[in-house]
Amino acid sequence: MAHALRLAERGLYTTQPNPRVGCVIAHGDEVVGSGWHRRAGEPHAEVHALREAGERVRGATAYVTLEPCAHHGRTPPCADALVAAGVARVVVAAEDPFPQVAGRGIAKLRAAGMTVDAGLLRDEARELNVGFFSRLERGRPFVRLKLAMSLDGRTALANGESKWITGEAARADGHRWRARSSAILTGSGTVLADDPHLTVRLPVAEAFATPLRVVLDRDLRVPAHFHVMDATAPTLCIHDAQRAPPTVAPASVRHAGVLLDGNGRLDLNAVLALLARLEVNELHVEAGSRLGGALLVAGLVDELLLYVAPVLLGDLACPLLELPPLASMAERWRLAVVEQRQVGVDWRLRLRPQPARPWAVSPD
Amino acid sequence: MAHALRLAERGLYTTQPNPRVGCVIAHGDEVVGSGWHRRAGEPHAEVHALREAGERVRGATAYVTLEPCAHHGRTPPCADALVAAGVARVVVAAEDPFPQVAGRGIAKLRAAGMTVDAGLLRDEARELNVGFFSRLERGRPFVRLKLAMSLDGRTALANGESKWITGEAARADGHRWRARSSAILTGSGTVLADDPHLTVRLPVAEAFATPLRVVLDRDLRVPAHFHVMDATAPTLCIHDAQRAPPTVAPASVRHAGVLLDGNGRLDLNAVLALLARLEVNELHVEAGSRLGGALLVAGLVDELLLYVAPVLLGDLACPLLELPPLASMAERWRLAVVEQRQVGVDWRLRLRPQPARPWAVSPD
Repeated sequence: MAHALRLAERGLYTTQPNPRVGCVIAHGDEVVGSGWHRRAGEPHAEVHALREAGERVRGATAYVTLEPCAHHGRTPPCADALVAAGVARVVVAAEDPFPQVAGRGIAKLRAAGMTVDAGLLRDEARELNVGFFSRLERGRPFVRLKLAMSLDGRTALANGESKWITGEAARADGHRWRARSSAILTGSGTVLADDPHLTVRLPVAEAFATPLRVVLDRDLRVPAHFHVMDATAPTLCIHDAQRAPPTVAPASVRHAGVLLDGNGRLDLNAVLALLARLEVNELHVEAGSRLGGALLVAGLVDELLLYVAPVLLGDLACPLLELPPLASMAERWRLAVVEQRQVGVDWRLRLRPQPARPWAVSPD
Repeated sequence: MAHALRLAERGLYTTQPNPRVGCVIAHGDEVVGSGWHRRAGEPHAEVHALREAGERVRGATAYVTLEPCAHHGRTPPCADALVAAGVARVVVAAEDPFPQVAGRGIAKLRAAGMTVDAGLLRDEARELNVGFFSRLERGRPFVRLKLAMSLDGRTALANGESKWITGEAARADGHRWRARSSAILTGSGTVLADDPHLTVRLPVAEAFATPLRVVLDRDLRVPAHFHVMDATAPTLCIHDAQRAPPTVAPASVRHAGVLLDGNGRLDLNAVLALLARLEVNELHVEAGSRLGGALLVAGLVDELLLYVAPVLLGDLACPLLELPPLASMAERWRLAVVEQRQVGVDWRLRLRPQPARPWAVSPD
């Protein structure tokens, strides 16, 4: 199964909106077939593995990182294919949350007389598709807030300059996290101040599904000549639903209105629900301290991806996140450290707000 | 020599104001004597090692982490003792910067016909006594600024509450850094706000030389009922030299005046020169963002000892260091990471401002 998970990871940048899935078919220690899902519309992992195994599939065990599908989507059901091929046993890491599968894949296999075991490396399998599970189980993307700061927690100088706090290696690493995401979200303030591209630049020619650029632009302030409005990637501008979207817009730009919340700001829960409907699994946020803080306060940040440079900028520089005042230390925002590592001269930390929502834990 | 350095380290908390020194006497691979300096007024490392070696010292090699002394201080010269004992060869890690030694120890040994090699693990030996070398070579202590902060660079809530950002393990670790320091410095603002003890609390009964407490109290604002004025440790109040010190003060409290600088603040260079005259080697600073920032801006911070808790406090909480505004990112304060490790749930970072002053480098 660990081998199957490594295969699944190869689809990290390309399977959108599908999950990353790997499959290994074996007789005991001998692997007779393996495969992974490359991109939506193309064969599932099981199909690749079955093809490779050929006749040797009979009586073998198939290890699949996600429950085989039982429905006719863009490809025929993998459960049927496994049965037809004569596989004896199927081991599944995680159950598929997709409504049209959700246990039916396993049921179908069992009904055909196969032995099916589920749950081997389930946490790892869910983690690999954390956005996919979030979208289907919670109706919203997995939100990863990316920030780059000095050691004293500052993201830009008082004059707004933020290029570059962290080094080249950290910035290159940041593009890999963009590449695995379905969408990259920012606010109109950041766009107007920094005019970012919000595209993926990888050092070598690697395939990736181009993430959707999402701009929270309540008052439709971002003009068409800004980089996010160019044709290098599709863009969604989300604005106050009570405003009419512009009658002319670049072909790559769509508009969607959502309602405002009690504070007169775009309702962030509605924004995420909209993005889930657009099949956004992992949402990569690169925004200012206000939007970042608002997402955290709303309980909508699942992970902080934090690059820290060993430099100081001082108390006049821009803060990391705007958060409401705390009455006592007991109210501090606790974070669990998922990972820490050196990236070039900087540190990269991945942290998850605590207490963790029950969802983030494996369901059993 | 590595063995001798480990022995020397045993005096980390106790040799004040003397350096930590270790000595190993060996015939080839066979150690016949070893020792370390425990505290001022007691025998030097060489004497302990010679005693242990007894008759077996003849023709042996002595490894000493610091050049043997050549003068009559509180104990007779170690160079003479090594010669008299019949040691054949002496290997020295670092030359003694003490004006009454400074090469004379080595010269004396050579004059007596011994082979002397200097420089083995010199950087490590100097690092172990970084404060001692700083005091004698620069006329000021080695300044270590200790700070505890949230991940977003905040040291206290807006309401002043700062207990406790970091966990118990980090706080206990902080006491070990206090214990190795000759003095602990703070400002009157911190004393009035937090009423700290600034004493050393170690979990088990370990010997340490009690560090001097130093309060920068320009206007003599700290009343006698504050903890730093109690009799648990000696205290030095440094005030504006133009003010008369109080006529009555607790027995454990001394006063010293220094001149103000151009900004009407206590001249920090004068403060450090005064502390060097009082034989302060390592100075441990636990102060607010203003004094910490002023020390950094004045180029007087040699090391940052930074505890980082995986929590967020938000933009309204107190900043790490007050620093002048930066006109461009090129002006950012760069830090070299000396060490990073986990301490309980927190991180401990040791960092040194860059570019490093030439002093910090080994002199050859």
